[in-house]
Amino acid sequence: MRLRRLQAGLLIAMGLLALPAIADTPKATPTAKELIAKSKSEEWRTPDPENLLYMQLPQGRVVIELAPDFTPLHAANIRTLVREHYFDGLAIIRVQDNFVTQWGDPNDDDNGDKSKIKPLGSAKPKLPPEYTRAIDAKLPWTPLPDGDVYAPQVGFTEGFPAARDPASGREWLVHCYGMVGVARDVAPDSGSGSSLYVAIGQAPRQIDRNLAIAGRVIEGMPYLSGLPRGTGPLGFYTQAAQRVPILSMKVAADLPAAQREKLQVLRTDSATFSAIIEAKRNRHDAFYALPAGKIDLCNIDVPVRTESAADSKH
Amino acid sequence: MRLRRLQAGLLIAMGLLALPAIADTPKATPTAKELIAKSKSEEWRTPDPENLLYMQLPQGRVVIELAPDFTPLHAANIRTLVREHYFDGLAIIRVQDNFVTQWGDPNDDDNGDKSKIKPLGSAKPKLPPEYTRAIDAKLPWTPLPDGDVYAPQVGFTEGFPAARDPASGREWLVHCYGMVGVARDVAPDSGSGSSLYVAIGQAPRQIDRNLAIAGRVIEGMPYLSGLPRGTGPLGFYTQAAQRVPILSMKVAADLPAAQREKLQVLRTDSATFSAIIEAKRNRHDAFYALPAGKIDLCNIDVPVRTESAADSKH
Repeated sequence: MRLRRLQAGLLIAMGLLALPAIADTPKATPTAKELIAKSKSEEWRTPDPENLLYMQLPQGRVVIELAPDFTPLHAANIRTLVREHYFDGLAIIRVQDNFVTQWGDPNDDDNGDKSKIKPLGSAKPKLPPEYTRAIDAKLPWTPLPDGDVYAPQVGFTEGFPAARDPASGREWLVHCYGMVGVARDVAPDSGSGSSLYVAIGQAPRQIDRNLAIAGRVIEGMPYLSGLPRGTGPLGFYTQAAQRVPILSMKVAADLPAAQREKLQVLRTDSATFSAIIEAKRNRHDAFYALPAGKIDLCNIDVPVRTESAADSKH
Repeated sequence: MRLRRLQAGLLIAMGLLALPAIADTPKATPTAKELIAKSKSEEWRTPDPENLLYMQLPQGRVVIELAPDFTPLHAANIRTLVREHYFDGLAIIRVQDNFVTQWGDPNDDDNGDKSKIKPLGSAKPKLPPEYTRAIDAKLPWTPLPDGDVYAPQVGFTEGFPAARDPASGREWLVHCYGMVGVARDVAPDSGSGSSLYVAIGQAPRQIDRNLAIAGRVIEGMPYLSGLPRGTGPLGFYTQAAQRVPILSMKVAADLPAAQREKLQVLRTDSATFSAIIEAKRNRHDAFYALPAGKIDLCNIDVPVRTESAADSKH
């Protein structure tokens, strides 16, 4: 029975199951699943297919939502690369434990065959840095009042974790788990989107505002996080056989509607999202001796579901 | 050349490489590797072999350092389980993305064969909770002044990330990446150490003070974090073939000295450790447009090296 009991305990720890109220405890905090089950359809948004990328790996499909309001030039360049099939046949070349999984052209490497480097086609080889942007009052902003070690203000906008600094008037997306960034050289304008990485461990917040964040993985993270770590410097794979091939990368808008993922993302300015945050911040049930009382920006998952599904995938 | 340049950029981002000072920037911040290379031998400690567990997986060896000053009853019970070969032949049964990898008895599960549940031998089936302890002025304490979302004070003690609450007079280990916890049921005394988990994603700080933390993985994390995620509820593997067998688990002290890992851990009250933290908090080099200025407790790795090695493995 131990593991069954254990599962119950961890289900509660994960906020996925509530115990029935018992005499000496108040009614258990509703779980994310319960809150999502009661959510209104208008609290969910269907991402613009122009902003959705499908990266097909042998193990399955990864879906990335671009963030053109924060990195418009990178979003446009990445769409160009994808539409000209730049990524098709390239690979995941690096998995550094507790940091990032990165993909791109294996030949564009010190040990690669320079003569086989794939050309970028009509995409730009360099872009102006888009690490931060001027705070835009027209963009939705749901502040998280719990505080943050790295930024004066944190919260959510358009489904992404973000930060703001009123003193400088700037805002930026942050490197929470699943956020997709643009690898670059020392020169700030040296990123093009032809090599991307995703955060797979503790949020590397120390690189916030130093790299452009292109978007977020909204489906298929396990295909990127659950890979053997590379044994070369920085977690690069040392042998071609270790790399995971990218079979294809497509913009959802280029597929017939019937072939698109029917994904919906909970609006981060919705009452249900606020309730999910509060339920995780102050969880009261038979398992929790001490509710956390606070929650870190990067400990909050933005729920994603399929249009037909009544419950969240998260 | 792009990836070579990219590597340089990310090397710097990871603080693993410093650029030579150039005209328009001050001398680059020393890297962790450089600081470790200059460290004094007395800044490193060799963990007590009574507190080191070797978990042998087909892929390699995982080394766990127990934290008996925080969870003494759990450390003793886990040693008993290990010495009576409880874990030998058991398996990794769960890998939940961005949360935990967990191991224990696959038969002690709703779908398991109850008749084959492995007995705990002379180990205790239940233990008093050891989630927090009274602050002990005799234990080393290196405060981290950067602040924390979850706790009044955070810092390091004996190589482990920890938190303190002067108001309650309690201190506790926190669930940073690589910390090993004791799975339990709803009842606070229902954990025995017969099923353990390790944090493999964003630190699940919301469960701090609600579970006993037995120690930290100091070697071999990639063998636990780089596994395919389970597809069952909570990331449990649904088929026996998916589980990773535990070939054996041993206490280092029970092996001849020649067969023990020669691991050393940088003292968290050493000048070199403080310098590594500051170098990550305020990184100045050609790559960084904006140093973070702050650092989160769980973004700090406690360096581990082999006695013979001059450089850190982290």
